Amino acid sequence: MSDRVTEAPERLYLYDTTLRDGQQTQGVQFSTSEKAQIAKALDELGVDYIEGGWPGANPTDSAFFNAAPATRARLTAFGMTKRSGRSAENDDVLAAVMNAGTQTVCLVGKAHDYHVTHALGIPLEENVENIRASMAHIVAQGREALFDAEHFFDGYKDNPAYAVEVCRAALDAGARWVVLCDTNGGALPSEVGRIVGEVIAAGLPGDRLGIHTHNDTENAVACSLAAVDAGARQIQGTLNGLGERCGNANLTALIPTLLLKEPYASRFETGISREALAGLTRVSRMLDDILNRVPTKQAAYVGASAFAHKAGLHASAILKDPSTYEHVDPASVGNTRIIPMSNQAGQSNLRKRLTEAGLVVEPGDPALGRILERIKAREAEGYSYDTAQASFELLAREELGQLPQFFEVKRYKVTVERRKNKYNKMVSLSEAVVVVKVDGEKKLSVSESLDESGNDRGPVNALAKALAKDLGRYSEVLDDMHLVDFKVRITQGGTEAVTRVIIDSEDGQGRRWSTVGVSANIVDASFEALLEAIQWKLVRDCGTKETAA
Amino acid sequence: MSDRVTEAPERLYLYDTTLRDGQQTQGVQFSTSEKAQIAKALDELGVDYIEGGWPGANPTDSAFFNAAPATRARLTAFGMTKRSGRSAENDDVLAAVMNAGTQTVCLVGKAHDYHVTHALGIPLEENVENIRASMAHIVAQGREALFDAEHFFDGYKDNPAYAVEVCRAALDAGARWVVLCDTNGGALPSEVGRIVGEVIAAGLPGDRLGIHTHNDTENAVACSLAAVDAGARQIQGTLNGLGERCGNANLTALIPTLLLKEPYASRFETGISREALAGLTRVSRMLDDILNRVPTKQAAYVGASAFAHKAGLHASAILKDPSTYEHVDPASVGNTRIIPMSNQAGQSNLRKRLTEAGLVVEPGDPALGRILERIKAREAEGYSYDTAQASFELLAREELGQLPQFFEVKRYKVTVERRKNKYNKMVSLSEAVVVVKVDGEKKLSVSESLDESGNDRGPVNALAKALAKDLGRYSEVLDDMHLVDFKVRITQGGTEAVTRVIIDSEDGQGRRWSTVGVSANIVDASFEALLEAIQWKLVRDCGTKETAA
Repeated sequence: MSDRVTEAPERLYLYDTTLRDGQQTQGVQFSTSEKAQIAKALDELGVDYIEGGWPGANPTDSAFFNAAPATRARLTAFGMTKRSGRSAENDDVLAAVMNAGTQTVCLVGKAHDYHVTHALGIPLEENVENIRASMAHIVAQGREALFDAEHFFDGYKDNPAYAVEVCRAALDAGARWVVLCDTNGGALPSEVGRIVGEVIAAGLPGDRLGIHTHNDTENAVACSLAAVDAGARQIQGTLNGLGERCGNANLTALIPTLLLKEPYASRFETGISREALAGLTRVSRMLDDILNRVPTKQAAYVGASAFAHKAGLHASAILKDPSTYEHVDPASVGNTRIIPMSNQAGQSNLRKRLTEAGLVVEPGDPALGRILERIKAREAEGYSYDTAQASFELLAREELGQLPQFFEVKRYKVTVERRKNKYNKMVSLSEAVVVVKVDGEKKLSVSESLDESGNDRGPVNALAKALAKDLGRYSEVLDDMHLVDFKVRITQGGTEAVTRVIIDSEDGQGRRWSTVGVSANIVDASFEALLEAIQWKLVRDCGTKETAA
Repeated sequence: MSDRVTEAPERLYLYDTTLRDGQQTQGVQFSTSEKAQIAKALDELGVDYIEGGWPGANPTDSAFFNAAPATRARLTAFGMTKRSGRSAENDDVLAAVMNAGTQTVCLVGKAHDYHVTHALGIPLEENVENIRASMAHIVAQGREALFDAEHFFDGYKDNPAYAVEVCRAALDAGARWVVLCDTNGGALPSEVGRIVGEVIAAGLPGDRLGIHTHNDTENAVACSLAAVDAGARQIQGTLNGLGERCGNANLTALIPTLLLKEPYASRFETGISREALAGLTRVSRMLDDILNRVPTKQAAYVGASAFAHKAGLHASAILKDPSTYEHVDPASVGNTRIIPMSNQAGQSNLRKRLTEAGLVVEPGDPALGRILERIKAREAEGYSYDTAQASFELLAREELGQLPQFFEVKRYKVTVERRKNKYNKMVSLSEAVVVVKVDGEKKLSVSESLDESGNDRGPVNALAKALAKDLGRYSEVLDDMHLVDFKVRITQGGTEAVTRVIIDSEDGQGRRWSTVGVSANIVDASFEALLEAIQWKLVRDCGTKETAA
């Protein structure tokens, strides 16, 4: 083993299927633009293959490939091997996959004899021929071919010779990779390691074998590592372990292990740089944002709790030497250590975040303790300042006496109405009235929710327009500001369910900022977040010496 | 391997630390009565040991042991080995642990030389002597002794002889078990397997070795299995994988693997019966209920998605033979199969789901194609029917001509207002007017958003109340129905961002159903979901022969 380290590292390939198998997660349905956004993040991360979907299977996947983003990674179209009774050239399902025009094509086919005879109902040899012809067809078109050997491990356990024959046929026909799939997630790590070792001993080349596992026994990561230990050189998985049933092998957990931990770190190289690895936590959270999911706190490496030290013994040892209770440096994956707020580390973290907001506070300033207390109290009410940095800044400014009252909201009223229009069609319309006091003057503004095309955009839209409509001398400053995203989550505030709204705003100077509002009333929560978005913009453009209201 | 099966199975012991290490989870703080409730559930499940906490370390743990429930399982008090400079008899921290009066006592001590010299600052031999004396003290009091060897794997990698010496001292002093702990969660399964094998070869008896792992690389379950493969015979873990940082080894995933899957099922016996295993999903959900957490859908074996088949190819095969895509029977762990709708679903999937809704449609019925088309079109607009089974049923009924129009909504209007009250405090209030036609009669209803305590619950609350307030002869049927959850997300509908609302409702007969609404206007999306919730309830309680409106 020790002489391994001095050898040149072997290349290990990472194949991401978040956009295909990840979409099989219950409740997950990506839009075309979300697929493009995730593909871009995967490409920046440095995976080798991005499986984009199944062209022809649904409109979203087809639309994604029609306007596929340019990536350094090999964009891969997924499909199934040609059906019996027609040639590869004349199979319309396969043609739709080929027509996506990707550099790489991955087709799934059966490796378990029982499925061939019982699900497909064709002779075993015909299945082998379908696979061979499909792979040859891809290669003949000048593309890179992959074969996903479905149910490989169950198939191998029942009929090892046939499972191996199927794989060999795909390789002989020119497939770059044969991917051994544990489709129902039932194989255990020791089995996977043993079987991969056996098929390599039987002549399948390890550097053309991939592994595709599922988490049905919570062993998908371990099964992937066992396959690599046995000689496989490609891993298929998804970000945050998305995927059918219990999910696929979690690349967000596998990537740091492969890059940071032995024997993998010395033995292999991947397409992922240390710099990209340091962005992994951000990529993981971005995906949760897109899916409007609460990030899993206990996720390996990237979870908010992954480096949180609650036990008193651990926390004090960590201060002396982090390696005592941390197996890797949290910064290496872009994560941060959390030590209970009450101690010194809590305050230095706070000062760091204040500095990022341009607020310099000396160590030991009693305002630090007050800010921490207010954040704790607000979080108990359902607020979250993880992403709402602008709201965090406003809270701190208020505590530090550095937040002017530009204007005062006296009251507002929003109406949502749905009724038949003159063409007897049900239509809805919202209208908002906002009353503010600016420079001692009371101003009433009213706006409705229709966009340029006459479509109703709802009460929050009407409210946003009415609020910004007339703020006296501040109105001009707000002209280049607009709302870019709006996220709603039901959460716990004390003992009641409350609504948390996070609003992302943008201005003509390229700034982008997030604010948060919480209330049992969703319109009111939105109003609070809108109000803070405007306040933050006014602090930036009008300074903090103002006291207009 | 094959002759193994005919041998008598070996006993494998399960040690639960949900109440001690599980309490180190960020955000988790059990009350004394919750601890008792969990202990009872663990005892019914059949684990061998229940670690209840650290007597003396905090008031909750002390109170739990003072009124400890009677259990068949061995209730275990946790603590640390005696400190230097005093005898075991005179260490007050250890005395508090012993005074809990449990049959079994588990003490943690250091197995890594670096921690002995740097954290404790004592000679290596003195640490060994502290461990020996502590174990001997427990045994002398007629109790069963366990030693948790902290940082064992890191210690073994740095100084194998010392790590083994520490363990041998504990065993020689009478400890029933030495538990090899991977305290910082950094060891990988192959390392754990190799090291456990080496220490057994060095003379430590496998049937007196336990394994304690953490999930920092998402390998805690696999590391536990690797230790058992190598000869260890006790596993420590927690329910739902609670625990410090990324959590401990998840017993909820390990137990079904050990009982249902080979080689474990034939090779070992545990204290857990098949009947208790069939209650595992319920135990897992109960713990989430206590912690007020949303259960993890993708959890192995017990998650709501664990047997959900979304891919069309999978779903149709499952209908022929469940074993094709299920590695175990969902009923064996008390879970259920779900075949959700999605844009990848086939007709057989659809028929299965229609049958679940009580709608029998013959294969080949052209309505199947129409229903699928409508679902696809609605999903493109932003709807999702994965969880909204009631909305799915209504859509299908409409297409099949089996949905009566109980009433007709003519119009509605909702007002949200925020202003100062007479005490000069900002308050908000929503009011909803709904106009419906029932049995040819027009009915106007108005409701406001205040709950019994006078708190504003927002516009959707007002709308829900107004809608249900007067529906003529149907009102009575709706009396026992109420809204239990409300989920909002912003999603893509065509090219525009729209709001998707999912509402969960419940009635007095224990039914629970989910409906979905989509609109750019959040109030309108909520209204649609509310309306469908009422329609579904009326279908159930009034039948489908009605045509009232």
